[in-house]
Amino acid sequence: MQEKPKIILLGLGKVGREVIHQLDACGLAYDFCALADSSACFVGEPLNKEQINTAIQAKVHGNPLLTLADSQPLHVLSEHFRKGMIIVDTSAALDLDWSHALQKGCKLVFANKNAFSAPWVQASRLFNQPEIRYESTVGAGLPVIHTLRTMIGSGDQVMRIEGVMSGTLGYVCSQLEAGLTYSQAIQQAYDAGYTEPDPRDDLSGFDVLRKALIVARTAGWPLEQQDMTVESLYDDRLVGIPILEFFQRTALLDELYAQRVQAAASDGKVLRFLATITPQGGRIGLQAVDRNSAVGALHGAGNYFAFYSRFYNEVPLSIAGPGAGIEVTASGVLNDIIALINS
Amino acid sequence: MQEKPKIILLGLGKVGREVIHQLDACGLAYDFCALADSSACFVGEPLNKEQINTAIQAKVHGNPLLTLADSQPLHVLSEHFRKGMIIVDTSAALDLDWSHALQKGCKLVFANKNAFSAPWVQASRLFNQPEIRYESTVGAGLPVIHTLRTMIGSGDQVMRIEGVMSGTLGYVCSQLEAGLTYSQAIQQAYDAGYTEPDPRDDLSGFDVLRKALIVARTAGWPLEQQDMTVESLYDDRLVGIPILEFFQRTALLDELYAQRVQAAASDGKVLRFLATITPQGGRIGLQAVDRNSAVGALHGAGNYFAFYSRFYNEVPLSIAGPGAGIEVTASGVLNDIIALINS
Repeated sequence: MQEKPKIILLGLGKVGREVIHQLDACGLAYDFCALADSSACFVGEPLNKEQINTAIQAKVHGNPLLTLADSQPLHVLSEHFRKGMIIVDTSAALDLDWSHALQKGCKLVFANKNAFSAPWVQASRLFNQPEIRYESTVGAGLPVIHTLRTMIGSGDQVMRIEGVMSGTLGYVCSQLEAGLTYSQAIQQAYDAGYTEPDPRDDLSGFDVLRKALIVARTAGWPLEQQDMTVESLYDDRLVGIPILEFFQRTALLDELYAQRVQAAASDGKVLRFLATITPQGGRIGLQAVDRNSAVGALHGAGNYFAFYSRFYNEVPLSIAGPGAGIEVTASGVLNDIIALINS
Repeated sequence: MQEKPKIILLGLGKVGREVIHQLDACGLAYDFCALADSSACFVGEPLNKEQINTAIQAKVHGNPLLTLADSQPLHVLSEHFRKGMIIVDTSAALDLDWSHALQKGCKLVFANKNAFSAPWVQASRLFNQPEIRYESTVGAGLPVIHTLRTMIGSGDQVMRIEGVMSGTLGYVCSQLEAGLTYSQAIQQAYDAGYTEPDPRDDLSGFDVLRKALIVARTAGWPLEQQDMTVESLYDDRLVGIPILEFFQRTALLDELYAQRVQAAASDGKVLRFLATITPQGGRIGLQAVDRNSAVGALHGAGNYFAFYSRFYNEVPLSIAGPGAGIEVTASGVLNDIIALINS
């Protein structure tokens, strides 16, 4: 009889908890050996149902079980690492050191983008490893990373990648197109829960930059953040001011964006926040695209990824759909876990 | 050291030969144990480069090496089947009997649709088997089957599938939309090599029906051909007549299709040959869709597949791109072979 897969889960936020739920629901046999978060850590070999529930409840109610000194659960957990164990990172932790886990022969699944968008000298060892999976770092559950890896694995060569990688900015573009002002569109996106607590974290394009970098590196291009030019959707007048003041001043940009929408419309085009990446680098920002194109047909928060390659040169292979959300992000994580168990 | 994967290839047509080429180019270590076609069969354990070339040349030049009695290469080859061997069917053979290969524990890869669109009582044992892969039967190299299987494997439930599954009919729709008459559109598609030798084999919708059935069954719905209603794009006046006469009479339908295109256009819509499938059955035929939708944005011979599920309920997970062509079909076959080798 095969041994049950052993899983360590980092991050007990919404995605982490949904991963636990979906793992339960899909009928897979497995054991949790540890659940950990920046504020709590629960270890057992394996954890029983009651312990798992206690950990979840403690997290939900903000009741730390074991406070870790330095938000470094890996350090505390590393003595529990075993060969073949699957470590799943759904946290937002920065600077986790994966050396020990890799040395021990653990398999890794990431929804956390940080390690993959770090400078290439640190990030490189995480790419192109069959036992390291990170589908949910880009496009949530959409099969973006899998498709790229498969293309390359069978000898295709990717030439160019185009993508709409931010649901939040897609929503903002749709609202601008529908006639809302910039300030109205930002306010609505914020009210609908589509933005980060500070909308500038989306509007800066930095999140798209990180995703573009992950996609590029998966395509085999060892690019760095500075190889991408990023257009921010707010300007100096909105930098470094408190968030309340930010919302009061967004109207300063209403006219600018109304003009850009208008200029595009007069050419039969619509604006999309597009990333275009080649082996040489990338450009991320607003672009006017044909209303009747696949990118123009995107509405609301949908993501879109198009791969142009040796085999797909005229018409790209493209994937579209919701690129954010708890359920689809968790399902991307689950797909990675299942693929590692079956490999 | 791991043993080299052993491969038997059925079908030495364009796709089969491109599979051989791509296998060579991707740097994988493997051995061919047999190459077979309806007219030729070459067995060796393993075949050396020269034998492989001889088999290919014999096929290209129509010089049978070994004539098989009954187009049943499986029968002749079955004594060579070994556990773990990968048998790849790129032929168009009908009624191959896979029992022996399955009993022996062979792994199977199909570009040949026939076994998968047969009545469910025969086809069922080929579905939902991790060691049987058939990505190229639908959408060529697009990751359609893989994505569906992954969704279901992680506990998602597919509710509805929409697809434009014929590049040929997509091309015809694009030409009609561009203002060509029905007879012109058919002639152009034929001249460009997009159609079967007899265009009625495409226009009947039967090829789409088979693909729709394969997709539906992959989604977990054991549908039969009779559960699908199919609209043919030619009528009784063009049935059962020689092909030359067919081309002479296509103008009979010019007005009908011009009217349908016009009616759609007056609503801001365009016609697409769409398959819509649910667990209860499917409808395949021309449908007027919004010009600004993802399906409306398809141009030319592109395919499109949209999966609506429990996780993707409002906005589907969709995949688009060229759904036919020698290179992309072979790359789909190669992806399946690689996945089986790694599993």
